[in-house]
Amino acid sequence: MGTVAVVGVGLIGGSIGMALRARGLAKEVVGVGRDLASLEVARERGAIDRATTDLARGVAEADVVVVCTPVGRVAEDVRRAADSAPPEALVTDAGSTKRAIVEAVEKSPRAAGMFVAAHPLAGSERSGAAFARADLYRDRVCVLTPTTRTPPGRLRRARTFWSGLGCRIVEMGPAEHDEVVAFTSHLPHALAAALAGAVPADWHPLAAGAFRDCTRVAGADTELWTAIFRENRGPLMNAVGKLQDRLAALKYALMNDDEEAIRRWWSDARSRRASFEAQQPPSV
Amino acid sequence: MGTVAVVGVGLIGGSIGMALRARGLAKEVVGVGRDLASLEVARERGAIDRATTDLARGVAEADVVVVCTPVGRVAEDVRRAADSAPPEALVTDAGSTKRAIVEAVEKSPRAAGMFVAAHPLAGSERSGAAFARADLYRDRVCVLTPTTRTPPGRLRRARTFWSGLGCRIVEMGPAEHDEVVAFTSHLPHALAAALAGAVPADWHPLAAGAFRDCTRVAGADTELWTAIFRENRGPLMNAVGKLQDRLAALKYALMNDDEEAIRRWWSDARSRRASFEAQQPPSV
Repeated sequence: MGTVAVVGVGLIGGSIGMALRARGLAKEVVGVGRDLASLEVARERGAIDRATTDLARGVAEADVVVVCTPVGRVAEDVRRAADSAPPEALVTDAGSTKRAIVEAVEKSPRAAGMFVAAHPLAGSERSGAAFARADLYRDRVCVLTPTTRTPPGRLRRARTFWSGLGCRIVEMGPAEHDEVVAFTSHLPHALAAALAGAVPADWHPLAAGAFRDCTRVAGADTELWTAIFRENRGPLMNAVGKLQDRLAALKYALMNDDEEAIRRWWSDARSRRASFEAQQPPSV
Repeated sequence: MGTVAVVGVGLIGGSIGMALRARGLAKEVVGVGRDLASLEVARERGAIDRATTDLARGVAEADVVVVCTPVGRVAEDVRRAADSAPPEALVTDAGSTKRAIVEAVEKSPRAAGMFVAAHPLAGSERSGAAFARADLYRDRVCVLTPTTRTPPGRLRRARTFWSGLGCRIVEMGPAEHDEVVAFTSHLPHALAAALAGAVPADWHPLAAGAFRDCTRVAGADTELWTAIFRENRGPLMNAVGKLQDRLAALKYALMNDDEEAIRRWWSDARSRRASFEAQQPPSV
């Protein structure tokens, strides 16, 4: 690849830039952002070669544009990037939700013809290029969500781009993606925050490893997660409902002191957890 | 201390034995268990000096007896240990619940006069002496739950015993302990299992760090957690109810696409999580 433009150079965009440069995959990485100080952090960390706050200029010579802004802004940034990038460029993104983004992008025929939606499944409760890491995406899944309007050539290039960063590629429709990540990512974030919020600070001295690990991602950025929850509110409401049903089943078993029901409730979860563990790549 | 008898030499009892021996706190550590093969694992790991399946014999010369059996068996084992140990011995335990254990022990005047209930706040989703570690209790909180019937001399010795293992001592009543750990420990375990159980295995490839960390403790032993949930079912039902209320508030905010309510819901949790993080000792 020649020039890659990374729009939004925080933890996600910064890690992509670092991986591109560490692996020698791009001739030049251009960082596009709104805040010069953040762009300077990204440059110092080696995530980008040069920086600009002008999106149109930043993407003007790009072979690939990766939009890594918060989900509420991705579609608009993709459309603006498509308007200013060379017509043969690939535009992709890294947003945690896909259906609304894809629908909005596909209202612009030019953008639709250049875009392949993506969601690399890695992140952190921390924000900003200061926490970026070149290996953030190594051995992680990247979901691509092509539609009937996605040009096959762009899809092939998107597979090459994301697997070049170390990702394993999984493909599915945008709506299906959103239903699944509502359970596998957004629900754990909601539970982390629900638990963190339910325990008074006075009681923290009696909290240990289970609480610490279960609440870790509640430290993530408020604006980022408000936007993700809103974008995926339908599937997330469904996932929260399913979780409430499971808690209600536990409460009912406790109310009846039903030993066998409590045992089954736990051991069903335990065997699911064991099958998840068994599937993890060794590096995780 | 002279002889310390550890009754139940799994992860908890084994780690206590290893810490006692590593710190040179006891002349001899005797392991008491029901299964000779497990006791042999504990001996090979250096957790105990000698082993027996005969509780009465194992505690006969003990200065201190630590009962580390599953919560449903603790009270009975404490009473049996008190019957056979020298009258000046201290008997303590490591159970995750306290009210039912203390009430049951205090029905025996002899046991009541020798017993100080304890809950060292550390563990793992793994079971057995094979996973025991000498530093499991270093810098961790140990809750002691004395009552008006607890002899002050025994309480002082219990403080010395548990702080000798590296613990910070916190004291409160047994019922208060159970109310607090229902939120800080049992609820995170219930959420881990609820989440692990709610996500179909087919979707595991799309699960990353948040799911992994939030479900980790769902890998813990079924019998152990069935017993803990039953022992503490009243406070746990209350804690689950409070968590359900928080999830209901989130669902309501999502249903109304109420950006400000979602933001407040998240940022309240986030600041609680930050204050927890700030209180953690550096080694955790």
